[in-house]
Amino acid sequence: MIKGVLIDLSGTVHLGAQEIPGAVAAIRRVQSSGLPLRFVTNTSRMPRRMLRELLQRLGLQVPPEVIFTAPQAVHRHLRERQLRPFLLIHPRLMEEFADLPQEDPNAVVVGLVEEKFDYAHLNQAFRLLLQGAPLLTMGRTRYFEAGVGLQLDAGPFVVALEYAAGIQARVLGKPSADFFHAGVAELGCRPEEVVMIGDDAASDVGGALAAGLRGILVRTGKYRRGDEDRIGQPGAKVAKDLAEAVAMILEEYAQDPAPRSRA
Amino acid sequence: MIKGVLIDLSGTVHLGAQEIPGAVAAIRRVQSSGLPLRFVTNTSRMPRRMLRELLQRLGLQVPPEVIFTAPQAVHRHLRERQLRPFLLIHPRLMEEFADLPQEDPNAVVVGLVEEKFDYAHLNQAFRLLLQGAPLLTMGRTRYFEAGVGLQLDAGPFVVALEYAAGIQARVLGKPSADFFHAGVAELGCRPEEVVMIGDDAASDVGGALAAGLRGILVRTGKYRRGDEDRIGQPGAKVAKDLAEAVAMILEEYAQDPAPRSRA
Repeated sequence: MIKGVLIDLSGTVHLGAQEIPGAVAAIRRVQSSGLPLRFVTNTSRMPRRMLRELLQRLGLQVPPEVIFTAPQAVHRHLRERQLRPFLLIHPRLMEEFADLPQEDPNAVVVGLVEEKFDYAHLNQAFRLLLQGAPLLTMGRTRYFEAGVGLQLDAGPFVVALEYAAGIQARVLGKPSADFFHAGVAELGCRPEEVVMIGDDAASDVGGALAAGLRGILVRTGKYRRGDEDRIGQPGAKVAKDLAEAVAMILEEYAQDPAPRSRA
Repeated sequence: MIKGVLIDLSGTVHLGAQEIPGAVAAIRRVQSSGLPLRFVTNTSRMPRRMLRELLQRLGLQVPPEVIFTAPQAVHRHLRERQLRPFLLIHPRLMEEFADLPQEDPNAVVVGLVEEKFDYAHLNQAFRLLLQGAPLLTMGRTRYFEAGVGLQLDAGPFVVALEYAAGIQARVLGKPSADFFHAGVAELGCRPEEVVMIGDDAASDVGGALAAGLRGILVRTGKYRRGDEDRIGQPGAKVAKDLAEAVAMILEEYAQDPAPRSRA
């Protein structure tokens, strides 16, 4: 029984500033069905405020809490443990952490920060790790297409710091089970009641299945032929795009004898 | 039967500009014994020319070929395969590679280069690796004591590039067997006939034993109590310092019925 939906943003709903055809109408179908919904993203450069603006420009009005990002998961982790972060993250993401104390840091957060991945900043992070600070990250992505060719993402720098300090980073973004379970909790569901829809076979779909959710891989965004074999977990479904994925979900939801009882 | 000796430099013969007490006299004893000798070092900042000058200041005159460094091993590897290196190495080491073509590079060499470990240079290396360039390095050292605290060595950046490009670096320095075997070949010996003496339990002694050499760990330089347990291979000996290690070797060498036959 499906009781909630998690949807990836980049490559599933939009590509850059463009809607992936049919995505907005599909999301409206979910909204009118009564199925609770969260957008889940490892966003490395855009705070929630900007993601909301992006969805608005595509014609979708959503309250802030419908967007659940990896930086928010990191923020919650830091706040709950009263940690003071040393932030190697994109300048635009700094606003998400503005309410936390950052003097005398005792935690290291690594995101995608490009020019700040220099020797001085990495040494500063390294020394904090040696003093026992935990290493938190939004993901272990290897590289991304930067328009001028592929560029290193945060993952290689996370791995470098892990190796240097002999520690393991905690990933608070897809594909970590912690992150999916936080999203599931926001929906008020159990993992097996939730479907994750995304274009990244390993991070979106494989991660969701490993965390006990259901998963649908869409053939948009970064999807490349054969990605079905990279999911690494049994039980995934595959759809042409978000519109088809939503149709599959709503068909199953409609067969549920009392679909409105939890709306 | 011992037929040759490999000796580490930093921490075994000298510490900075200072001799480790008794080291020079011990080296002279090896020289007069007729046992062939090579100094082997992963030097990340000093070309062979400077290492010779350093030994000269300690009172040791040695011909250049007695010093065998990781950058030289990298140089030989590049030359034999007609590779054009992209060099992320210390400026002082550039002279070791000055005779190789460096236009349109098709190999990546990573050493300790501190300020050059920036996003632009690492991306350049990353893109060459994606095009199939091999990744060569002098070692996988995690960090070093820089006087102002610990700093990241080349290892973390090697690991970052390996992770990003999904490849494995080739280590042409201690503790790689390739490097020890190159040193053994320079002595005209077989691995089991050669003793390696050094202060790094894993890199000097463990590496040598794994490559089929003998090994003596000296309790000078970076040696810390309990390092004997970090050798990771059976059969190592332990000596107070280079002087005692040489005494042990010459005692065994003297028991050889015809020690001069191969001098």
